[in-house]
Amino acid sequence: MRIVLGVEYDGTDFLGWQRLDRGRTVQGVLEQALSFVAAQPVAVTCAGRTDAGVHGRCNVVHFEPPVERADRSWLLGTNSRLPDDVCVRWIQRLPGDFHARFSARARRYRYTLLNRPVRPALDARYVAWLREPLDAQRMQAAARHLLGEHDFSAFRTVACQAPNPVRTVHALSVQREGDYINFDIQANAFLHHMVRNIVGSLLLVGQGVQAPEWLGELLRGRDRTVAGPTAPSQGLTFIAPLYPAQWQLPAEVTGADLQP
Amino acid sequence: MRIVLGVEYDGTDFLGWQRLDRGRTVQGVLEQALSFVAAQPVAVTCAGRTDAGVHGRCNVVHFEPPVERADRSWLLGTNSRLPDDVCVRWIQRLPGDFHARFSARARRYRYTLLNRPVRPALDARYVAWLREPLDAQRMQAAARHLLGEHDFSAFRTVACQAPNPVRTVHALSVQREGDYINFDIQANAFLHHMVRNIVGSLLLVGQGVQAPEWLGELLRGRDRTVAGPTAPSQGLTFIAPLYPAQWQLPAEVTGADLQP
Repeated sequence: MRIVLGVEYDGTDFLGWQRLDRGRTVQGVLEQALSFVAAQPVAVTCAGRTDAGVHGRCNVVHFEPPVERADRSWLLGTNSRLPDDVCVRWIQRLPGDFHARFSARARRYRYTLLNRPVRPALDARYVAWLREPLDAQRMQAAARHLLGEHDFSAFRTVACQAPNPVRTVHALSVQREGDYINFDIQANAFLHHMVRNIVGSLLLVGQGVQAPEWLGELLRGRDRTVAGPTAPSQGLTFIAPLYPAQWQLPAEVTGADLQP
Repeated sequence: MRIVLGVEYDGTDFLGWQRLDRGRTVQGVLEQALSFVAAQPVAVTCAGRTDAGVHGRCNVVHFEPPVERADRSWLLGTNSRLPDDVCVRWIQRLPGDFHARFSARARRYRYTLLNRPVRPALDARYVAWLREPLDAQRMQAAARHLLGEHDFSAFRTVACQAPNPVRTVHALSVQREGDYINFDIQANAFLHHMVRNIVGSLLLVGQGVQAPEWLGELLRGRDRTVAGPTAPSQGLTFIAPLYPAQWQLPAEVTGADLQP
């Protein structure tokens, strides 16, 4: 039996998800809180290891409980030991063949950019900022070139350790709402820095530096050195992994697919 | 000639808008930055003096410039002297008969509440939290009793210094979006704590403690002591004052009225 948790966090003051020997990480504070409730060490496995500064709306973890506690104790006890910028949203018990990472059929991210002459004051933790006017429709046209199954080597960081660079992008929409531009992307999985590198390249299209077709050329070239710069981390939120309906998990991790 | 500014701020770390002898306030840091640019004291008058912890999406101020500076110098110079949680969004010059407070024909506020069993982690600065399930439609039904011109004494704080408690509420909508409930309210002007006291009373209706009609009784009774508690400040954002079109100010302060 495995315990599955939905975890929300503000990534601003974390060095990322993954536990480190030194430094504050989401996995670190979560395992510390769970270990307090269990009165012995607990290690978790997550659906998506986010980078420093990246937020999580509903990341998912599983662990094998070393002791028996009521669901309510896990939930309330853990939340009472977590700092203000992390919480466990829900808890569910699933059979041992559920795996937070390998059972996920897709992941969804949102990147939010404030596009106006002046830096943000409100929301400054949650948006990136670009002063130069961006054409969202032009970026949407460029985004279409990335849909489907491709080798995404052009958009992964040098440090990416994935053995296989092929991923399937299910949907990628670029929408302006007033001064804000939202990039919503869903794929079966992502390479390291893939969302931020795609956004960084789309921005060159939005600024008129590159044509929409350039995204297709970048993709086919599989050369990271010619793509745009990595967009800053604070605009990125891991919305949620998506699991098959059979697991009967909460709506935010089984919801309908984004439409391409 | 007056200079008019649109000002955005995250109220979390401020003791409110109004300048104090001791303590960090939005007016205080703004006047300090403007005075640096002017190289002499500058005092501003604002459209709405928000309380401690309340945010501003686009508050508006005016001042008489004591020296001549280019608009660009006022804007960039002031922003470069302001802390990260305040910025000047735009600058405009208007004749001396414009007044940030008295020329405003309406004000718009949004109150955001997270309604789920677990406290917020992401957005914790910008939302209030209530664990008990709320019925938004029931609150919307109650809200209708407040529309129009009334004596709002039942919803003002004891400390309110307004000589006349009559205000006109143009619109008040209560809408659920997932776990979030947004209260959007527009009135010609507001009494002290009026939005937070209205929200606090609507919450009693949303929890089923009071009937929707109770809001009408409260209003007619004009007795603050029987209304609901004041809702916490961090959920409240002053969206903007609204001015007549003749002043040709930016869209966010001349936009279309909220529909009741």
